[in-house]
Amino acid sequence: MPKAKDNRYWVGFDLGGTKMLATLFDPAFRPVAGKRRRTKGQEGVKAGVARVIETIHDVLSEAQVEPSQLGGVGMGCPGPLDLDRGILLDTPNLGWKNVPIKATIEKEFGCPAFITNDVDAGVYGEYRFGAGQSARCVLGVFPGTGIGGGCVYEGKILRGRTGSCMEIGHVEVVPNGQLCGCGRRGCLEAEASRLAISAAAATAVARGEAPHLQTIAGTEIAKIRSSTLAKAIAEGDVVIEKIVRRAARQIGTAIAGTINLLSPDVVILGGGLVEAMPNLFLKVVRMTARKRVLPSFSRSFKVALAKLGDDAVAMGAAAWAAQIVTSERRPGTQ
Amino acid sequence: MPKAKDNRYWVGFDLGGTKMLATLFDPAFRPVAGKRRRTKGQEGVKAGVARVIETIHDVLSEAQVEPSQLGGVGMGCPGPLDLDRGILLDTPNLGWKNVPIKATIEKEFGCPAFITNDVDAGVYGEYRFGAGQSARCVLGVFPGTGIGGGCVYEGKILRGRTGSCMEIGHVEVVPNGQLCGCGRRGCLEAEASRLAISAAAATAVARGEAPHLQTIAGTEIAKIRSSTLAKAIAEGDVVIEKIVRRAARQIGTAIAGTINLLSPDVVILGGGLVEAMPNLFLKVVRMTARKRVLPSFSRSFKVALAKLGDDAVAMGAAAWAAQIVTSERRPGTQ
Repeated sequence: MPKAKDNRYWVGFDLGGTKMLATLFDPAFRPVAGKRRRTKGQEGVKAGVARVIETIHDVLSEAQVEPSQLGGVGMGCPGPLDLDRGILLDTPNLGWKNVPIKATIEKEFGCPAFITNDVDAGVYGEYRFGAGQSARCVLGVFPGTGIGGGCVYEGKILRGRTGSCMEIGHVEVVPNGQLCGCGRRGCLEAEASRLAISAAAATAVARGEAPHLQTIAGTEIAKIRSSTLAKAIAEGDVVIEKIVRRAARQIGTAIAGTINLLSPDVVILGGGLVEAMPNLFLKVVRMTARKRVLPSFSRSFKVALAKLGDDAVAMGAAAWAAQIVTSERRPGTQ
Repeated sequence: MPKAKDNRYWVGFDLGGTKMLATLFDPAFRPVAGKRRRTKGQEGVKAGVARVIETIHDVLSEAQVEPSQLGGVGMGCPGPLDLDRGILLDTPNLGWKNVPIKATIEKEFGCPAFITNDVDAGVYGEYRFGAGQSARCVLGVFPGTGIGGGCVYEGKILRGRTGSCMEIGHVEVVPNGQLCGCGRRGCLEAEASRLAISAAAATAVARGEAPHLQTIAGTEIAKIRSSTLAKAIAEGDVVIEKIVRRAARQIGTAIAGTINLLSPDVVILGGGLVEAMPNLFLKVVRMTARKRVLPSFSRSFKVALAKLGDDAVAMGAAAWAAQIVTSERRPGTQ
């Protein structure tokens, strides 16, 4: 947390597969400028990094803040990262590899920069400003195209030696189940992500079991998005609701297993699926987790919806950068 | 870690179901006196607490150290605990309930006292003085009568809001499997603890499949201890080896799932089963964990045997107490 006398500004950056978002925060951590751009990863690393820098300059200009007034830049980034060296190792959605983004930003703006896994940044954002405020331990789970997880424990983002951890999307929920992108079988992500749900939903459409989804999207899984599923359920496609509820139960089961290990006070649910069907996910996940956790833990946690939506990653990344800079911890131990 | 100028002594206490052990550490954290006693839980709380206090006085006397020279007492204790208030909530092995041991010790010796889950204390001991020294994140797994787990992350014991966490013994490894003491089914502890192995081994004896174990122990599972299993395997009971290997694989599977969440640098194996068959467990657990973890984590950890044996809990409890007292953290946030 910036000290009261601290008069530095902070940039939070959300580098996504399709869009990038920069937010400038004033010394009291109020957002004072924001800029969103398409990422256009396919135009290559050089053009992409130039767009990142341009976007940060844009928010500085908008608020008439000089780079010399910056305390730091925090970036939430996808894919495997080298957190300490600040390198994007491999970003399949963008086609980028080994991008030393930290060094580039630091050189351009003359202030410290830090990268964080995007899900971790989002969970940290919720911990500082959203649904997890002042919790001792927050577990965040974000089911969407994949299923991301992150944990803030006593104010620290839990991480691996070089990159992030908390791979709740790869908890095994079905022995010998669906093949997962990681090469293993039955991972939560392979059974309960939006992609897995859409595939099951398209199958139901093909069988003639989901007339409303048939009308909205047909059997093209790229068209079966979270909002489409929500609409089909609202219109009465019972089979689609069953498919989504199964996924929510599996998410609850994986969360229960994680609670037995980490005993978080708060479990935060966010991401595309949850945003489209918040009550269904909140209710089913909470009930499943309470039922499947160790009896002594069954009242030890609450389950809540994320509050910050798309702002969580940029807010969390900026706040985490500020936390590192203003505490006495060395950057290497972020 | 006590500062160089610190001249305080520390007591580590291991309160076990059958024995209690006190160790006195000098300001450089060398053990200078030790005393072991039967716990005799069945004699009741009052007699038991008196034995604890007597045992601590014994080690002080042995080393001619006054209570006023003590920096603190750390106790590793079984069962659910209220860590901050220092209360043994329920200790089934001893038949004790709601024992305010922290307050009692503090009053008797005039120094701060702290309680820690015994497995956590053991893992912290290994982190400070044993197989996990200077690791960023240590996961300790101790298969014995039950299966305990603990984690030290950047120097801190991970814990729940009021009690301990890291219940790796209750990771589900067999859907709808053996009934567990917690009331659920297929928990690691219900499938792979010494008790579960002994039951399967006794069944093999009853079927005439394990002639050596038949001679050593028969079908009385109380007689089938870890060392008995090791002996039967060494003498050629192939079925017993298969039963133990299955348990080791299940332990490796539960560890793999935990690595995907916490990404420890070091996984430490200890406890009765591992001490009796160290090579079997080390090899099978390591191989299973490497195979079942996310591919990107498969080289991110090493698996090692615990080094401190029975001393780990007392050493860890004392060092954790010293860590709390000598750091500026409030006891309430231990």
